[in-house]
Amino acid sequence: MTERIAIDMDEVMADTLAKHLASYKRDYGETLTKGELAGHRFDEFVPVARREHVRAYLRTTGYFRDIPVMKDCQAVVRALAERYEIFVASAALEFPNSLIDKYEWLHEHFPFIPYTRIVFCGDKGILAADFLIDDNVHQLTRFTGQGILYSSPSNIQETRFPRVNDWSEVRQRFL
Amino acid sequence: MTERIAIDMDEVMADTLAKHLASYKRDYGETLTKGELAGHRFDEFVPVARREHVRAYLRTTGYFRDIPVMKDCQAVVRALAERYEIFVASAALEFPNSLIDKYEWLHEHFPFIPYTRIVFCGDKGILAADFLIDDNVHQLTRFTGQGILYSSPSNIQETRFPRVNDWSEVRQRFL
Repeated sequence: MTERIAIDMDEVMADTLAKHLASYKRDYGETLTKGELAGHRFDEFVPVARREHVRAYLRTTGYFRDIPVMKDCQAVVRALAERYEIFVASAALEFPNSLIDKYEWLHEHFPFIPYTRIVFCGDKGILAADFLIDDNVHQLTRFTGQGILYSSPSNIQETRFPRVNDWSEVRQRFL
Repeated sequence: MTERIAIDMDEVMADTLAKHLASYKRDYGETLTKGELAGHRFDEFVPVARREHVRAYLRTTGYFRDIPVMKDCQAVVRALAERYEIFVASAALEFPNSLIDKYEWLHEHFPFIPYTRIVFCGDKGILAADFLIDDNVHQLTRFTGQGILYSSPSNIQETRFPRVNDWSEVRQRFL
């Protein structure tokens, strides 16, 4: 039977952190780098007085529409789709204004993924899949299949899950 | 371990067919009844020349925002939530303009269901749950747990799944 892989969007398919850093530079004139963020979430790294502002990015209609695609992601997901059942699974319900943006983003960048393979949820414990590739440790602990941790600055200290650092490592692991 | 019940929205929690019939009467001046539809989907029952028009209802922003709630549904779902893990699972990705409407509808009528228990998908085979209450036979055949068929005019001839005719029967079965 074909194995099923669920794939997270933010910080896995989409370089959402790059958008956060660009938005932060636009608003505060300061350049933060992914390296500086090691071990921290972006919204916890910025000064307390700026947290509400940067958290509001996520609730802004349109914010998720133009996130850059992660390097190699399109080619690897396309190749995975020939051997596995691929589902895209985003915890988008936390930010309902992102729902249409995320749908349109997928339609633009991954037109070969049909709507039947998209899941917008809040808790990835609901996913019936063999694997979940996600940067979010909380979601991986909820998931009942094999979690694969996609590296992001916030999770570099995590050791409970097999790790992939980029999409070429996803390719190596699964293809 | 707490059993998990996934519950469909359209024709189960929401009386979507009532909205279709009201919209049809508004547009064509004709009163159709649920009884007449027995064995048919609404869009297949209407004259061929009107099908595109009535199918477009589903793609209209706002259409799903004011659907009536099914009788007894709120009280029974609230009671189920005390004994089971309840997830609402709608195949909303087929009609992306419905996503925000459905989210807001749930927030209005079922404020006790947190966003973490909402799933918008296209294929209910992705749900890891013990039960799925759904009127859609195709989705029940995809689901890997125990499907429970919620009666609607379109499914009256179906015999492959245990059936509930209304929310009082859901209560009897699960509580």
